[in-house]
This record gives sequence, structure tokens and C-alpha cells, in this order.
Amino acid sequence: MSKGEIYIISTGTGNVQQLTGNACELLGKADLIVGYTKYIKDIESLIKDKEVYSTGMTHEVDRCKYAVGQALTSKKVALISNGDANVYGMAGLVLEIIEANNLWDKLEVIIEPGITSILTAAAKAGAPIMHDFAVISLSNLLTPMELIEKRLQNALSADFVLGLYNPLSHSRKEPYFKFLEILQQHRNGDTPVVIAQNLGRDNEAIHIKTVKDLLELKDDMTMINMSTILIIGSSATRLANSGKKVITRRGYQQNYDYQLQ
Amino acid sequence: MSKGEIYIISTGTGNVQQLTGNACELLGKADLIVGYTKYIKDIESLIKDKEVYSTGMTHEVDRCKYAVGQALTSKKVALISNGDANVYGMAGLVLEIIEANNLWDKLEVIIEPGITSILTAAAKAGAPIMHDFAVISLSNLLTPMELIEKRLQNALSADFVLGLYNPLSHSRKEPYFKFLEILQQHRNGDTPVVIAQNLGRDNEAIHIKTVKDLLELKDDMTMINMSTILIIGSSATRLANSGKKVITRRGYQQNYDYQLQ
Repeated sequence: MSKGEIYIISTGTGNVQQLTGNACELLGKADLIVGYTKYIKDIESLIKDKEVYSTGMTHEVDRCKYAVGQALTSKKVALISNGDANVYGMAGLVLEIIEANNLWDKLEVIIEPGITSILTAAAKAGAPIMHDFAVISLSNLLTPMELIEKRLQNALSADFVLGLYNPLSHSRKEPYFKFLEILQQHRNGDTPVVIAQNLGRDNEAIHIKTVKDLLELKDDMTMINMSTILIIGSSATRLANSGKKVITRRGYQQNYDYQLQ
Repeated sequence: MSKGEIYIISTGTGNVQQLTGNACELLGKADLIVGYTKYIKDIESLIKDKEVYSTGMTHEVDRCKYAVGQALTSKKVALISNGDANVYGMAGLVLEIIEANNLWDKLEVIIEPGITSILTAAAKAGAPIMHDFAVISLSNLLTPMELIEKRLQNALSADFVLGLYNPLSHSRKEPYFKFLEILQQHRNGDTPVVIAQNLGRDNEAIHIKTVKDLLELKDDMTMINMSTILIIGSSATRLANSGKKVITRRGYQQNYDYQLQ
């Protein structure tokens, strides 16, 4: 019997045009596509008549176990991970399951990287992450609140540009309020902030705001919810194009002449 | 005269198969391709007979000014940025030049995101960045050493997974030695480390090591140089597949049964 194959495919943020050539090629080779219903729908045009196994949100452990189980029957299984599979995606869970069941010898595993949300948000807003940055998920379902707090404190006090995933949900507001509290200790009110909503989808919206605006928005869930990515500027971050773009300066302006001849 | 167009295109790490559909489409629309000679070579097969302007390393300000100047003559100009244009890439510089010359009304600017090195390195090594992470460049050409030091201290003490770009060059060893010193204060010797060399190129190599190994390597520039990306695990990072893979646990293992039926 031939070895099973499992492809963990990162599909980028929303639009099929954001998949890489490699990701498309692996999708083409797969016999079975496994993923969260919403993300499978995003790539429907690339799947055609392949077998699909999709389930709703929060069933990620079941989906990963199913994908591994099916690959063991010598199928080529593509497991879909939105954004990048390493960044709060499916890569770790699949590998943990393979490790726990001691299956490394029985499976070929390929992880294909993709564009994680903060990169799409940044490109749409200009160049807010031109310098060192930190990425934090505000979900405290699997992470203790104290650790999230410590990471927020350390990232903001060392003047990192900060990307926030999963900022706010109806049932989970405490981490976001804690973030706002820490933010005020470390950033001026006029520091630029990017609020990116529904990246790659029809209702995508990029808002260029400031820390002051963010504090006023508080927990306005029409603006900040689980489909929002936030980017908080560092002290080197500036508004450009009359407030329609954001740029974090890397230091070139100190040494170079920008004037065109 | 029609408006000039400038596309800042992220080409991912090395291989043309890592470009997105969007990036390929923009390349196809461009009249002129501008970029660093080495990175232009990476995508040669996609350029065909288009006009090309390429220069060597450290001429990035000239390249960006040239690209903007040419776009003002109504050309469609594609400026190539390796990895992701926002992560130590060309996006910020181009936008700063447009802002300094007050050209927003005269140009259409599109930034296309791409796969930055740490994502490729992570995928090749397994799932080392399944949780909050920080990215730091060790180049102190444009960044004061004290700020680099503070960011290293804060990222490591808050138990972030840490990605390092530009770790070590012949003329710039101090930041790397400082990093090793801070690393020892915050991580056990058996913490997994990924050393990714020449990503996407023929001589690509992924080494799974530990903090202890890294300290022993010191400034071995056959392993750690400007073509190397380092990923330092957090306290949740483990070796898997008998040391051939790295996984950072996100916490699922506390709540879920991984055994297949």
C-alpha cells in the first residue's frame, strides 16, 4: 500500500488569488479536501468535483483527526488552513496528532505556507510593519490571561509594531479591555492604528485610525470583532497621504535624500 | 496623460511557485520591472521580454526613486520585493518617497503581500510559530543597538516565539553576541531552534537544533549569516518526529483527546 499523504494548505486571506502556485498545485493533487465550511467556500472554484469533508467552527480537532485518519487509507488529503497554517492555524494540531499516534513513518506531510492576515492588512494600509513587530492573539480560551497581559506589556513597552488577532468577541471582552488599558500606558493618542475588517471578502474594509479613536470606539463590535485584525503603530509610525495611508519609518530618511531629480 | 501605476510586488522566499495569483497577474500587467539583481533572477521565468532595471544590494533608495520616476511617465512599474514587501521590504521606502514628493494624486499604488521568510522557515520545520511571536532584525545599520537589545529582552522574557532576520554578517557581529547573551537568561538549553538557510533556493537547508547547539555554534558563518532565518522556540515548543520537526503547543492537548479511533 502506498504511503498516505497529507497537505496542510494555507489559503491566505479570503480571495483565491492570494493562494500561491504551490498551494494550487497541492490542491490539484488532493483526493479529499478537509476544512472549516466557510474557508472551503472561499476556495470552491479551485476544488471542482473533489470529495469534501467540512465542519463548522470549533470542530478543528475532529477535522484534523479525520484528515489524518483518511490519509492513513492512502488518500491524498488536503487540509485547508486560512491565512498561514503556522499562525494560529492548523499546522500544529495536525503534527501533534501525528506525533501522539506515532504515525511519522506512515505519512508524507507537506505544509504549504500562506499569507497571514497581518500581512494583507499591512499591504492594504500602506507600510505599517516596516520594522520589528509582535503578533498576539487576544483569545484567552487556551492561553492564561496573565500571559496575554505580560506579552502586551512587553511588546508595547519595547516599541514593537503590534498585530492583534481575535481581538474581541461577545463572550470574551476582558482581554480587549486589558489591552486598551496597557495601550494607554505606552502609546500617544495620535499613534496610527489600522483596523482591517473581513480581509479578502466582499465586505472588506480598512480603517486608518489613531489610538485615541480606538479608545473612543471601546467595544464597538461593528468595528472590532473576530473578523478584525488590528495593527498598532510604534513611535516610528506616521500617517501619510492625508491620513489615508500608514508608514512605519525604518530610518532611511535620516541618511538619504528622497527628492526626485 | 493616464495616471502612472506602481505595483510593489512581494515575491515570497525564492521560488516562483511561492508567488500568489495576484502577484503573477500584476507582474503580467507591468511594462517595467525594477529590483535587486538577485531577486529579479529568481522570477526570470515570469518576466519574459519586459524592460528590466536591476541594481545591486544597498541601492534600494535609488531603485525606489527610479521606479517612482518611471511610473510618473505613465508606465506601469513593478517593483520587486523579496519575501513580503512590508517585512523589512520595499513598501515603506516607496511610500515615503511618494509622500516626500507629494505624488499621491499622480500615482496609483498597489502593494501585493507575500510570504515572508519566517513563514516559509516555520512550514519547513513543522509548526514552531503556533502561538504569539515577535520578529526582530538584528541589523543595527538603521536601528540603535539599545532598541534591538530592549526588544530582544522583552520578547524573550514574555515567552514569545522569536523570529530573527539578518542575524549575522562579517562586519556586524555585536548584535548577534548580545542576542546570545540575552537568550541564555531566558531559555533552557534544550529549547528547540530552527536554523533556515537559503530558503527557496537550490542550497536550502533546514536545521533543527537547540539553544545549547546555537551557543556552541557561536558566530559560525557557514550556519548563521545574512541568508539565514532563526526561529527560537517558547517554553511551549517541543521537538517531534525524533527531533526532525518542531511544534509549539497552543494548549489543545489539555482539553482534547488526540487518539485516533
